[in-house]
Amino acid sequence: MRAGADLAAIRERKPLVHQITNYVVMNETANATLSLGALPVMAHAVEEVEEMASVAGALVLNIGTLSEHWIEAMLLAARSANAAGVPVVLDPVGAGATRLRTETAKRILDEAEIAVARGNAAEVATLAGREAEIRGVESIGAADSGADLAKAAASALGCVASVTGPVDHVSDGTRTIAVANGDALLGTVSGTGCMSSAITGCFLAVASTPLEAAAEALVAFGVAGEDAAVGAAGPGSFHVALYDALYNLDPATLDSRAKVEG
Amino acid sequence: MRAGADLAAIRERKPLVHQITNYVVMNETANATLSLGALPVMAHAVEEVEEMASVAGALVLNIGTLSEHWIEAMLLAARSANAAGVPVVLDPVGAGATRLRTETAKRILDEAEIAVARGNAAEVATLAGREAEIRGVESIGAADSGADLAKAAASALGCVASVTGPVDHVSDGTRTIAVANGDALLGTVSGTGCMSSAITGCFLAVASTPLEAAAEALVAFGVAGEDAAVGAAGPGSFHVALYDALYNLDPATLDSRAKVEG
Amino acid sequence: MRAGADLAAIRERKPLVHQITNYVVMNETANATLSLGALPVMAHAVEEVEEMASVAGALVLNIGTLSEHWIEAMLLAARSANAAGVPVVLDPVGAGATRLRTETAKRILDEAEIAVARGNAAEVATLAGREAEIRGVESIGAADSGADLAKAAASALGCVASVTGPVDHVSDGTRTIAVANGDALLGTVSGTGCMSSAITGCFLAVASTPLEAAAEALVAFGVAGEDAAVGAAGPGSFHVALYDALYNLDPATLDSRAKVEG
Repeated sequence: MRAGADLAAIRERKPLVHQITNYVVMNETANATLSLGALPVMAHAVEEVEEMASVAGALVLNIGTLSEHWIEAMLLAARSANAAGVPVVLDPVGAGATRLRTETAKRILDEAEIAVARGNAAEVATLAGREAEIRGVESIGAADSGADLAKAAASALGCVASVTGPVDHVSDGTRTIAVANGDALLGTVSGTGCMSSAITGCFLAVASTPLEAAAEALVAFGVAGEDAAVGAAGPGSFHVALYDALYNLDPATLDSRAKVEG
Repeated sequence: MRAGADLAAIRERKPLVHQITNYVVMNETANATLSLGALPVMAHAVEEVEEMASVAGALVLNIGTLSEHWIEAMLLAARSANAAGVPVVLDPVGAGATRLRTETAKRILDEAEIAVARGNAAEVATLAGREAEIRGVESIGAADSGADLAKAAASALGCVASVTGPVDHVSDGTRTIAVANGDALLGTVSGTGCMSSAITGCFLAVASTPLEAAAEALVAFGVAGEDAAVGAAGPGSFHVALYDALYNLDPATLDSRAKVEG
Repeated sequence: MRAGADLAAIRERKPLVHQITNYVVMNETANATLSLGALPVMAHAVEEVEEMASVAGALVLNIGTLSEHWIEAMLLAARSANAAGVPVVLDPVGAGATRLRTETAKRILDEAEIAVARGNAAEVATLAGREAEIRGVESIGAADSGADLAKAAASALGCVASVTGPVDHVSDGTRTIAVANGDALLGTVSGTGCMSSAITGCFLAVASTPLEAAAEALVAFGVAGEDAAVGAAGPGSFHVALYDALYNLDPATLDSRAKVEG
């Protein structure tokens, strides 16, 4: 875990983070990426995704508002990223809520090499074949604890599983890390999960391993959430302060603020 | 009118509000829904809208940025919602501005059962066959008064008509309620009309009747607008404060702050 | 240069600014347009763009998230705008980053009459056949100075070239104007370039010439950026304050605050 050093590397190298994501959060994940210090680019046309993904530092796929051409574009981009050695994050938004979402997430996991799958407990549990309940895109509950779920999902999916919630858990199937940074207000703003996936992409572009990238991203985002909560009067002011906090994250103190175990 | 009790019910039950809405306001209506206390979900693929709509507490259709597949998805979702007894809100953004918008709004009203049609005076007047002028998506004027228009539209459209403006009017054709809550700054932020439709969906999921849901939603949104205007320096800070205000709405005082007649 | 008088004219006449733009910034350019005092409308369906563009005060085309039907819609809208005498702005987001973007921007310039092409140095240089480097949608550098590039691009493209950066340059091939208003925080928020294109559309609807419109828009947007930076704690609070600042721009003092040369 070297969140501070990797944050500094993001700001110095400014990796391009190609995002094929949902309509609801495009502006938000672009601004979170930019506030952290990386360069976001959104491109979804089948005619250009391979070209864009191949020159990116990371690719983020988010299935929050799917349709046919977007699925095709995600698969093309993922294969192009794989061929170029560009790491890929999958955010399976709403997996478990509809067949289309569950099947599309599984198809992406089957047909491409994913470095990190980042989702809430119900989404990850659905993909790992564990019991869970989801309402729309909100996790209502999962049978396993976060740590057990992350570990089981990593094994089942063959990639790092990053399960976010009140406490986050990331696992590569062997090592499991708990991250307790964050604030309850993160749950009151639409797209904060998607932002954490985008930030996972930023760290993947510079970190040593996908497991460290996933954990460091949640530390950075969680610490920013803690800073943003200071003085926030509700979801609106918290949301605004979150970008300020990402921008003002201090690499020198980030590791000392990490609440990690494992 | 029991806006406070219904707000408390929204926060307790957290109804899923499925929204097929325009690209411009998706994040804004999702955040307004979440700030109020319900759970938003955006899904527009023809492959999943029926499944999602059938398990929702309400469905909100907003035609602000139409295209062919979205129209098809709206009709599929509306029929699925109807079959499942899920109430449907229609926001006919820009009806009167182009033939596509006018005809699509009319088609949805014809082919599905709509609980509440929420729009500005020009949009609602266009659908009700009354005289009006629209510039893009902004109402420039309508021949009828708000109360007359709401009543006439409810009869013509066979659903509750919710006409928003400096003073809002909702009618089921028999009873017409005027709601005078709100602030002029609401007109300076893009998508506040769309937010009021989303919030109408939230109240529809819990209220006794569509008429009450529509009126209560405008009271809640208007009171939040009044709170947000305190200390706002312009549209940006007002917009942020609006989410804080929705989040901080107090069920215990909401009815006493309602400025309603009828 | 009569930025103040033209700003007053925008607020009085409230021109409709039809925008076919990317998913990432739709809300942001709509709100920037509305905060300035004009009326935004987003419409991209091939079935309605000609009707909408023909009654607008200006049309803004932004290629930030392209796909096939959107390219077709942009060409239809541009031809309709041309036929109706409605001025057109092109924002070639990411030209140079992928073939699709470069070719689409060139095609629009070939097949329609563009009043102003507004982009960063790398985007404009790509279209003008000059050397430049782009990473995603961020200009990394161009061989020419901003003034030389704007002049050369205006001649090569046959329209006003508006090249934004730390100092902006607009040129019609004969006269070149440098605009030094703005703040470094503008580079930390996604979509501020797109906002400046939307605001160029607002000024095009009222100004005497495309060159003046382009320069006045950058003065107004830059001055708003300066005002927004006062007291901003980072990209989030700056972004919010930018809408407040656009709304509060004072026509009486705007010209005295312009930092223009040429």
